[in-house]
Amino acid sequence: MSNTFGKLLTLTTYGESHGPAIGGVLCGMPAGVTVDRPLLDSWMAARRPGQSALTTARREEDTVEILSGVLHGVTTGTPIGLLIRNTDQHSSDYGELEHTYRPGHADYTYQAKYGIRDWRGGGRASARETAVRVAAGAIAYGWLRTLGVTIEARRLSPTDEQIKAARADGDSIGGIVECVATGVPAGWGEPVFGKLQATLAAAMMSIPAAKGFEYGMGFAGADRRGSEVIDSWVPDPADPRGMRTAANNSGGIQGGISNGEPIVMRVAFKPTATLLRDVETCNDRGEAVTLHARGRHDPCVAVRAVPVVAAMAALTLADAALLSRAQF
Amino acid sequence: MSNTFGKLLTLTTYGESHGPAIGGVLCGMPAGVTVDRPLLDSWMAARRPGQSALTTARREEDTVEILSGVLHGVTTGTPIGLLIRNTDQHSSDYGELEHTYRPGHADYTYQAKYGIRDWRGGGRASARETAVRVAAGAIAYGWLRTLGVTIEARRLSPTDEQIKAARADGDSIGGIVECVATGVPAGWGEPVFGKLQATLAAAMMSIPAAKGFEYGMGFAGADRRGSEVIDSWVPDPADPRGMRTAANNSGGIQGGISNGEPIVMRVAFKPTATLLRDVETCNDRGEAVTLHARGRHDPCVAVRAVPVVAAMAALTLADAALLSRAQF
Amino acid sequence: MSNTFGKLLTLTTYGESHGPAIGGVLCGMPAGVTVDRPLLDSWMAARRPGQSALTTARREEDTVEILSGVLHGVTTGTPIGLLIRNTDQHSSDYGELEHTYRPGHADYTYQAKYGIRDWRGGGRASARETAVRVAAGAIAYGWLRTLGVTIEARRLSPTDEQIKAARADGDSIGGIVECVATGVPAGWGEPVFGKLQATLAAAMMSIPAAKGFEYGMGFAGADRRGSEVIDSWVPDPADPRGMRTAANNSGGIQGGISNGEPIVMRVAFKPTATLLRDVETCNDRGEAVTLHARGRHDPCVAVRAVPVVAAMAALTLADAALLSRAQF
Amino acid sequence: MSNTFGKLLTLTTYGESHGPAIGGVLCGMPAGVTVDRPLLDSWMAARRPGQSALTTARREEDTVEILSGVLHGVTTGTPIGLLIRNTDQHSSDYGELEHTYRPGHADYTYQAKYGIRDWRGGGRASARETAVRVAAGAIAYGWLRTLGVTIEARRLSPTDEQIKAARADGDSIGGIVECVATGVPAGWGEPVFGKLQATLAAAMMSIPAAKGFEYGMGFAGADRRGSEVIDSWVPDPADPRGMRTAANNSGGIQGGISNGEPIVMRVAFKPTATLLRDVETCNDRGEAVTLHARGRHDPCVAVRAVPVVAAMAALTLADAALLSRAQF
Repeated sequence: MSNTFGKLLTLTTYGESHGPAIGGVLCGMPAGVTVDRPLLDSWMAARRPGQSALTTARREEDTVEILSGVLHGVTTGTPIGLLIRNTDQHSSDYGELEHTYRPGHADYTYQAKYGIRDWRGGGRASARETAVRVAAGAIAYGWLRTLGVTIEARRLSPTDEQIKAARADGDSIGGIVECVATGVPAGWGEPVFGKLQATLAAAMMSIPAAKGFEYGMGFAGADRRGSEVIDSWVPDPADPRGMRTAANNSGGIQGGISNGEPIVMRVAFKPTATLLRDVETCNDRGEAVTLHARGRHDPCVAVRAVPVVAAMAALTLADAALLSRAQF
Repeated sequence: MSNTFGKLLTLTTYGESHGPAIGGVLCGMPAGVTVDRPLLDSWMAARRPGQSALTTARREEDTVEILSGVLHGVTTGTPIGLLIRNTDQHSSDYGELEHTYRPGHADYTYQAKYGIRDWRGGGRASARETAVRVAAGAIAYGWLRTLGVTIEARRLSPTDEQIKAARADGDSIGGIVECVATGVPAGWGEPVFGKLQATLAAAMMSIPAAKGFEYGMGFAGADRRGSEVIDSWVPDPADPRGMRTAANNSGGIQGGISNGEPIVMRVAFKPTATLLRDVETCNDRGEAVTLHARGRHDPCVAVRAVPVVAAMAALTLADAALLSRAQF
Repeated sequence: MSNTFGKLLTLTTYGESHGPAIGGVLCGMPAGVTVDRPLLDSWMAARRPGQSALTTARREEDTVEILSGVLHGVTTGTPIGLLIRNTDQHSSDYGELEHTYRPGHADYTYQAKYGIRDWRGGGRASARETAVRVAAGAIAYGWLRTLGVTIEARRLSPTDEQIKAARADGDSIGGIVECVATGVPAGWGEPVFGKLQATLAAAMMSIPAAKGFEYGMGFAGADRRGSEVIDSWVPDPADPRGMRTAANNSGGIQGGISNGEPIVMRVAFKPTATLLRDVETCNDRGEAVTLHARGRHDPCVAVRAVPVVAAMAALTLADAALLSRAQF
Repeated sequence: MSNTFGKLLTLTTYGESHGPAIGGVLCGMPAGVTVDRPLLDSWMAARRPGQSALTTARREEDTVEILSGVLHGVTTGTPIGLLIRNTDQHSSDYGELEHTYRPGHADYTYQAKYGIRDWRGGGRASARETAVRVAAGAIAYGWLRTLGVTIEARRLSPTDEQIKAARADGDSIGGIVECVATGVPAGWGEPVFGKLQATLAAAMMSIPAAKGFEYGMGFAGADRRGSEVIDSWVPDPADPRGMRTAANNSGGIQGGISNGEPIVMRVAFKPTATLLRDVETCNDRGEAVTLHARGRHDPCVAVRAVPVVAAMAALTLADAALLSRAQF
């Protein structure tokens, strides 16, 4: 089930970077939800390669075809088939990779695991797979918004100038994406192994190049004292019997369950492993070789990862919303 | 399924801090594995309260009874029932909490989710639940060791003196636990949503008080350049056709799949929310109240979390090992 | 996950017939449901051995201890730990079975699968395991009744006299149990692979000795014409805009989803494989041997299976109810 | 997850009868398996409408496009995307069904569940959905054959002449399909809830129009004595330490686990609910109406269900094979 995410709202994806298509199946969407096509298209545009000087020059139209589960623009409760044809494939860029393992990529591990791999452009391990997540996440978000939930993701670092400098050097650079979800009511998320932060962590750490996840005070809380960061409850001036936390060091989640405050999380991404300069590596006979990447690559994953983080947050929270409804 | 962890090797837990018992069911253990009882007992001892000046004074014998699945000390392939009776309950310490929400705890969120809660000692949200994880993890680790896998967890911070100082102030302090797994062969872990780092992140973030997870270069990689941290492959002097990474910034995982190098991860814990001083909070009518915790509490979660982190790593890796075997 | 049943309401069981205990964990019960202990005890009594001349002489008190998830008799939404100690074990009855495979039992297949087995009284394959299902099913049924659902199971065949005659001959006899659930609203069950009849079939076929499942017209419909058995809709005199089926050949389910009519199903059980007479079989060296069962056994599974069928129906329908709630 | 079947080998399907396409994702296929395209095509041909006087006149090319997971005809271990475009849609045949519930169909229950439905040709509930199962099952079967497993399904009843007579009357007729799997080694299947017969039952009962499932002696065993049907073990003349059952009343499964004998099962199908004659039913205002089906329909489901039964058997057994491998 490693290609499926979620419990009640599930996304199953398929497809290689240089095969005929990528796609997925989004199951469990409630019936009667309008699919906001402009929203979906705007999320796809934010993830699309070739959009600016900060991203790869690879161009994909990334047209999302909805094959099922939607009638007259409204969900019917049946699974939503999503299809994106691959169009701009330069497989010839990858010819030398059939027998050579790129450093920092999944080439070696896929070969070790399966004894075979689609070496063209990263195959299944390509970040191209995330396009389907964005399409599905946008559909889920369309529903969440009707519940009053807002999701905003943004790049915290690096700056545009740092990315351009790295690109000019044929180099790459890491980054951090922050995501905030507001309007999540108290009571979403599950105890123990289904804690909302555990599910969100799994969601974010499944994004290619993610190396770390934190929420609320995160790693910064590890060297703080309790008296400095405790989230005191204070009466909510807007609700006579309600309450809020004075700070939000908990990041909107306590005991694995949302507490009504904004859910705040951050995802760390490593520098892209593909560099436009010579790198030392091995071939499949264990011999040292020098590799010079051609292909077209992103200097900083954190640019196009922004809508992917938002999409994974949307899928996770929509799933939590459905689970929460089952319990009442 | 929020009380179940794993896919093929699953642990399902139950029990409240102040009920008659906690326990669990470990399903999917291969048959013919010797249960290393001294190992299990030593892990339980490392998690046990009342062991030193660094931990809570609460005393629990934490005797683990194995109810099934083991015949003459060897697993039979059937589910292993685990039972730990609760013995040292001071429920009277918690009387005032029936109507008051402790800051930084799950009191409010459980109430919001279920409309009812066991308010004695944190109920289901108590870290006492992790005792079952440690017992199950030790059994899983007994099997992993026969495959050549070693798991070591240790507290990176804070120091003993910092913990004692916090306790002396009636305060608490956060911390970081690092865990390293060696001997994991290349090929464990799954692509896309089942990436090994995603499963490990979910495992670790399900531990009470965990606020962050990272592996390999982690958050530190977010402001590095690719040329600084790329994991070049170099011929393995010990294996004519093999190779290793020159550094291990990948933390032993590439594309979600282990690459044979040590798997290195870190978990950040927040300061314990229970302080032995007055704290401001609200009761269930939304009124501001001052709370003074009695009870017996840990000044630093990161002390007793060490075996819990090791146990969750063992459960996750053993599950990955089983999934890997299914594919060949 | 072969020891777990259900999706949102899950039962995980453990335990061998002649080990210290059997038990289980019921997860996903909504909070605030009163546990009807007399109902639970009456279901346990109906399954209990030694109750009449129609059942085995083995005596078990089968006292169900509830270890968690219930506060002052009401569910809290957290997992419910169930424990039943084994008390009346005659392991010595089974000594010769360590190296001999009883015909019609799971002895050979467990040995083939695991290379090891608990040969005392059937071990994990013993029907004793169903006691936990009955306890959990009774708790689930307590909730279903508040939704207006009634479940009735009864033995269709054989008659009491046929059972007594078989027992007098040291023989056994098969049987059929019918189960009817009324009050299930239209809309429970899922399309395609989650059809209500598929889930019910899996539930019933997981009961030891079950050989067949059917619902509605069942096998009898296989040689009928459509014009004879079509379930015409007719206006519901009790509801101006409602409708009912004129007959109920559909058995209350259409397209995998309940239609509001009674759900009717039947389960066929084979004759108990243990006969109190000489049987020809093989030992674990492949040699022919004659076996004469001692032990204490039921002449007809269908007697004590009645509450087990009801319990599995209750677990399945309660799970379907939860899934249905998630979708609105 | 109602659109997903399986645990390690999973098939997720999507698509409506009269939408742009149906399709699915087959995850978990081992790497290195040759996709036997002629086998796949022959199975698709056996399920295809319009093939003879025994089936509907609806014509579909049912061309299966493989979008991923296969490189040079060999599986890579990544998910296999399957796509079948819908081509011969006569949606206008179904215009009057927007507000009328056909008897014996899923029209009413989908409307009750979702509050909306795709009323054209049965939408998601159409048996057209099974085309994807056949394609995926054929791929799974290609792997099972390399393990020595053979699956044969055939229509037991009715005869061709009975079907033609029913069609001539504008009527329909039920039927039974038998499926036999040989070469399954001892040890596949799981205890308790994962029993092989439970999984097979769920697989078969998920096929549209299935009303009953049995294996081995099935319902016929319900009125037999144990002494008549006991499966005595006898030495295997072909294997000095092996054994076989003298009869195969167990149907190849004991205690939920295969015993090495042929697995024999039967599935009962009801008569097709669509009759080419006037039927009495209700519209969505609860008013009695007379419906006269146009459209093009099968007089007997059991004709085209043969490859569907085989496909579901293949998916179930291949999944069991993978689970079995995980345990050793």
